[in-house]
Amino acid sequence: MSGNTFGTLFAVTNFGESHGPAIGCVIDGCPPGMELSEADIQVELDRRRPGTSRHVTQRAEPDQVEILSGVYEGRTTGTPIALLIRNTDQRSKDYSAIAQSFRPGHADYSYWHKFGIRDPRGGGRSSARLTAPTVAAGAVARKWLRERYGVQFRGCMTQVGEVAIPFESWDHVPNNPFFAPIADVSHLETYMDQLRKAGDSCGARVRVTASGMPVGLGEPLFDKLDADIAFAMMGLNAVKGVEIGAGFASVAQRGSTHGDSLSPQGFLSNNAGGVLGGISTGQDLDVSIAVKPTSSIITPRESIDTTGQSVEVVTKGRHDPCVGIRATPIVEALLALVVMEHALRQRAQCGDVRQAVAPIPASA
Amino acid sequence: MSGNTFGTLFAVTNFGESHGPAIGCVIDGCPPGMELSEADIQVELDRRRPGTSRHVTQRAEPDQVEILSGVYEGRTTGTPIALLIRNTDQRSKDYSAIAQSFRPGHADYSYWHKFGIRDPRGGGRSSARLTAPTVAAGAVARKWLRERYGVQFRGCMTQVGEVAIPFESWDHVPNNPFFAPIADVSHLETYMDQLRKAGDSCGARVRVTASGMPVGLGEPLFDKLDADIAFAMMGLNAVKGVEIGAGFASVAQRGSTHGDSLSPQGFLSNNAGGVLGGISTGQDLDVSIAVKPTSSIITPRESIDTTGQSVEVVTKGRHDPCVGIRATPIVEALLALVVMEHALRQRAQCGDVRQAVAPIPASA
Amino acid sequence: MSGNTFGTLFAVTNFGESHGPAIGCVIDGCPPGMELSEADIQVELDRRRPGTSRHVTQRAEPDQVEILSGVYEGRTTGTPIALLIRNTDQRSKDYSAIAQSFRPGHADYSYWHKFGIRDPRGGGRSSARLTAPTVAAGAVARKWLRERYGVQFRGCMTQVGEVAIPFESWDHVPNNPFFAPIADVSHLETYMDQLRKAGDSCGARVRVTASGMPVGLGEPLFDKLDADIAFAMMGLNAVKGVEIGAGFASVAQRGSTHGDSLSPQGFLSNNAGGVLGGISTGQDLDVSIAVKPTSSIITPRESIDTTGQSVEVVTKGRHDPCVGIRATPIVEALLALVVMEHALRQRAQCGDVRQAVAPIPASA
Amino acid sequence: MSGNTFGTLFAVTNFGESHGPAIGCVIDGCPPGMELSEADIQVELDRRRPGTSRHVTQRAEPDQVEILSGVYEGRTTGTPIALLIRNTDQRSKDYSAIAQSFRPGHADYSYWHKFGIRDPRGGGRSSARLTAPTVAAGAVARKWLRERYGVQFRGCMTQVGEVAIPFESWDHVPNNPFFAPIADVSHLETYMDQLRKAGDSCGARVRVTASGMPVGLGEPLFDKLDADIAFAMMGLNAVKGVEIGAGFASVAQRGSTHGDSLSPQGFLSNNAGGVLGGISTGQDLDVSIAVKPTSSIITPRESIDTTGQSVEVVTKGRHDPCVGIRATPIVEALLALVVMEHALRQRAQCGDVRQAVAPIPASA
Repeated sequence: MSGNTFGTLFAVTNFGESHGPAIGCVIDGCPPGMELSEADIQVELDRRRPGTSRHVTQRAEPDQVEILSGVYEGRTTGTPIALLIRNTDQRSKDYSAIAQSFRPGHADYSYWHKFGIRDPRGGGRSSARLTAPTVAAGAVARKWLRERYGVQFRGCMTQVGEVAIPFESWDHVPNNPFFAPIADVSHLETYMDQLRKAGDSCGARVRVTASGMPVGLGEPLFDKLDADIAFAMMGLNAVKGVEIGAGFASVAQRGSTHGDSLSPQGFLSNNAGGVLGGISTGQDLDVSIAVKPTSSIITPRESIDTTGQSVEVVTKGRHDPCVGIRATPIVEALLALVVMEHALRQRAQCGDVRQAVAPIPASA
Repeated sequence: MSGNTFGTLFAVTNFGESHGPAIGCVIDGCPPGMELSEADIQVELDRRRPGTSRHVTQRAEPDQVEILSGVYEGRTTGTPIALLIRNTDQRSKDYSAIAQSFRPGHADYSYWHKFGIRDPRGGGRSSARLTAPTVAAGAVARKWLRERYGVQFRGCMTQVGEVAIPFESWDHVPNNPFFAPIADVSHLETYMDQLRKAGDSCGARVRVTASGMPVGLGEPLFDKLDADIAFAMMGLNAVKGVEIGAGFASVAQRGSTHGDSLSPQGFLSNNAGGVLGGISTGQDLDVSIAVKPTSSIITPRESIDTTGQSVEVVTKGRHDPCVGIRATPIVEALLALVVMEHALRQRAQCGDVRQAVAPIPASA
Repeated sequence: MSGNTFGTLFAVTNFGESHGPAIGCVIDGCPPGMELSEADIQVELDRRRPGTSRHVTQRAEPDQVEILSGVYEGRTTGTPIALLIRNTDQRSKDYSAIAQSFRPGHADYSYWHKFGIRDPRGGGRSSARLTAPTVAAGAVARKWLRERYGVQFRGCMTQVGEVAIPFESWDHVPNNPFFAPIADVSHLETYMDQLRKAGDSCGARVRVTASGMPVGLGEPLFDKLDADIAFAMMGLNAVKGVEIGAGFASVAQRGSTHGDSLSPQGFLSNNAGGVLGGISTGQDLDVSIAVKPTSSIITPRESIDTTGQSVEVVTKGRHDPCVGIRATPIVEALLALVVMEHALRQRAQCGDVRQAVAPIPASA
Repeated sequence: MSGNTFGTLFAVTNFGESHGPAIGCVIDGCPPGMELSEADIQVELDRRRPGTSRHVTQRAEPDQVEILSGVYEGRTTGTPIALLIRNTDQRSKDYSAIAQSFRPGHADYSYWHKFGIRDPRGGGRSSARLTAPTVAAGAVARKWLRERYGVQFRGCMTQVGEVAIPFESWDHVPNNPFFAPIADVSHLETYMDQLRKAGDSCGARVRVTASGMPVGLGEPLFDKLDADIAFAMMGLNAVKGVEIGAGFASVAQRGSTHGDSLSPQGFLSNNAGGVLGGISTGQDLDVSIAVKPTSSIITPRESIDTTGQSVEVVTKGRHDPCVGIRATPIVEALLALVVMEHALRQRAQCGDVRQAVAPIPASA
């Protein structure tokens, strides 16, 4: 593997650059016989799409997906599903200056050193735009897992900069541009407006869960379910931390309180976050990530160019002041891809995938 | 893959159960021509070995490694290196009661549901004992990376339970049983003694770094260096959280401070933790993990048995009250395995592995 | 893997159906910095293209390739190279009859049983049309191997039906529609004309070689160079046999004549076909394949339908009477993909790829 | 992968050298719950064992297997099964001469060029001794496939040197040292005696079949069942050719006779060898291989040493005059490993593995 395929049995190979002709992916391993149309995928792409509020980038990316293969008369055939998204909003401009200097916090420096060449247009391969095919592939996995096992993936924002967001209800999430689980987001809007005026950016904390989980998914010793979740999440642009269940809070916990007790009715708590020994328990998966502040800011920064000389860098253009705001549909998709992979692995080795008897879903 | 192989080009296949005849691993892909003896490996196994202080389990596991293949006249031949560690301290006892009930916080429940059968002796496959072959394989990777590129892996404990441990110097780490970077650990000893008397356990925070890093390691879009680090760390027994660089602190940071500026002399800070866009920058890798409290405690816990009936579980035996204490050599090994894998991938695609020009090592 | 990716380090993921919107592939792992344009690829696609003589199918497939990603300002960037070929000659017709019966010698029966659904249009996924993306990917590998190491891939037809074709010169191959290494192909034209009139088809034997080979490519114990060659060749549509070097003739050979002796000037023969112990010797790779007769013939055949009832099957349409005729550019591409993969693996583990000292190229 | 693992879902990682401390393998992915003991494996190892007749090497290798992991109370647990075979017959002798020259037909030359170092003792890693762990792993696969689906693997010798062996009955195979399907093997004994007296060696043709095959195994476009069979067979020491079904005879066949017709009672012939479009049809798998003459002969051969100087090589020691004689149990094991892998893949993607309705087994 050269790094652009996610998964083994449900293998999603991603391609494209931000300002190239197209982006997309090939899904290999989708079970045959599932009804699938472009509309099933488009609905998730639209949730991720920029330009939907003043708090996210104003780039116009219609992100219209085309299914090129793997579907016949509206059903998957078990052959590769290729998904194509043409790039349309490629503003032609002069990248020659950008191409020779390294923006702080960006992948410019590392890409250039790795490959000796990089596509600087709109971030090229390292652009968050490349999460669109992941969301598209995730939509396919989500549909199969929902229809087959009733698994549901939900995410929400739990902190923006210093502002923690309490959990009120999943019902609020689709009703505001922050994917926040609260009814009133006016203080978040104020916060973001101030940040934008200051020409700065902030980080975010995002939570993602899966409910209706089968038991037994995960392949220790190494390909544990939580290890693969951490791989998926940390691999997302701008993510600097991942927690499962109690996460870093478990450091100060005692064994007598951390270990989730069981009763005949199921687990009595979910400090584990739905995973024990790297294998799903049937409880809700519960994951949190830390998203760093957007690196593209208009505040001038000190840097160097490819010859090692000092330069001052200012990143103009249309950028999210908090990339975490649009992360929710992406992390839902990533979690779905991980669960899908392990569901197929469980079928391979153990022959079936089942729900556990009565684990109490402990996530709020 | 069925989950027991770590890495692709430097592939470590782990086998064994805690109380079976033996544990071990097969390393496939080690470059030929490196001097290697059992002593090179034993030194790292001895750092991980239990029974070295009163704060860790008193089990006697000599963990004597035997090289079965892949070395001829003291040099690696490029063929698989099989490492064998015989289990010696398998106290024969009656596991029939344990085998039928699920200990809270343990993998009993999930293994049983996944496979329909489990080896209950000493935790079987889910025992932390299976980290020994990982440490052994890591020793091989560390030697090659040190000799070839000068990379050095170091870890330390930064928090035990509620007690944060400040960083004083790497020099202190080998001089106390906690791998703590401080001169005086008497307060930690007192803390652990009280915990043990209370029959309880606590979590820990552990930090691991790599210095002398080459630039350009990591394979985006998915097999990013930080993604693979997160995979490795979260896959370690008891780990519930992983951070790279600023980690969760980056949520409340601003873009103007988080993004590491560059000067002709190198980076001016290391919020990135040595990775940008999933590719190493040449700065120190800087990773932190959260280790949950040991699940094996003598305090009685509420649980169920395989028939779904209520049972009370008490875990007797010789257990670490804080599994994080012995985690340091293991996470160093895991980080080495990740770096090794990506060094070989970089050679494959880009033909060489190089040091960046003058990145200032920013980790203390 | 779900079967649609060829290679690991130079990984080619193939997608599409014969009469779907498009076919193509994604190449992951191409080294950066190589000049690459669509013209480099199109030249090989044109060699494989149907409709170029009266002895092959008269379908008009322009097979125009578009590079969607991975190339910036005319050079590869090290990121995935997606190649797209739109299907244009999809004659709309009624496939309902074909869809319900199994043509002898075709994949209809096995696809239907495997997936429970199949795309019957033009053979769907099992069409030889899907070799086009392989040829395209092979063109990229060939260019890199030629520029970097001077490797050259050449193939020719050595038998059509009962007619053996002697080897005269590689120079003749591009000058006739059979890829035959002879000057006068009039007897082959007569043979094919008679076969077409009889409404029947015939098999072929095709040879493919690589010269200028580096030494040391191949990863025993299992991923041997010859094993991967056999995998590649047997996986090609209609192939029923593969030979390396002396092949089946070695059964009746003696050890005293089979084993290729060496002199200070190199090997004195090439019964090995360029591979010893699964590793290239630097001699020419020499491979032969058996291609079965085309299954699509207008002679009526006895078969059954999906309900198990007897049916008579006649395959109309535009089909090659000898699919082996167009196999040459495809097997050259496949051999190039195998060599490319192992060249990158050799770089990964052993650090470089070299020519052996003076092996005499023994293939004619 | 670095080449020493066979399979992905039923992954067998092989290690060891001919005269090192031990050889063995780790099987990852075996389904849980199957009864398994060392006796199940030993029976197949004993079929492969040398020293059982005067026509094979007289080396004494007891090849006693030890199960190190993955089995609890006589049943597989779904965790890795490590198998260990200690080397016992390592005659200490001076390898310094052999180590510096390249025996014709051997892997000495290519290993030395690839790795820059090689273990010369008894052929080191390239010895046919390393097929023992493959036979052991194959025994596990065979047992599961037999118990679960009723698949049976059988092989026999069909030609020794110039002497073709007609097929009489499978019943004869275990009753003679040649695995020949004939009652009277006296002419084969005479042939081998003469060959041995002449100090020479000969090749062989071996056939291997699987009956009771499920339908639908194989993952086109690339990981076809027949492609993987070719990979497995060509990867075996000394194999130079592989055929499926009609094999090279199909070159001279007509489409009207090659394509296997179907009736409501099943297929009417088996030119396909049990595979159509890379997917099993439920008919018997039918495979033939060409084994080259043993390279180790006492007749002096011309060669060079590592400095490029001419040397004369004579291979003394205890060698099989026809390595094909002992190939039968090995190719049965390899075929079982391939079928096992694809059975698990079929479960993963399509959810189950089934027998086709009434394909007539066409192999004799």
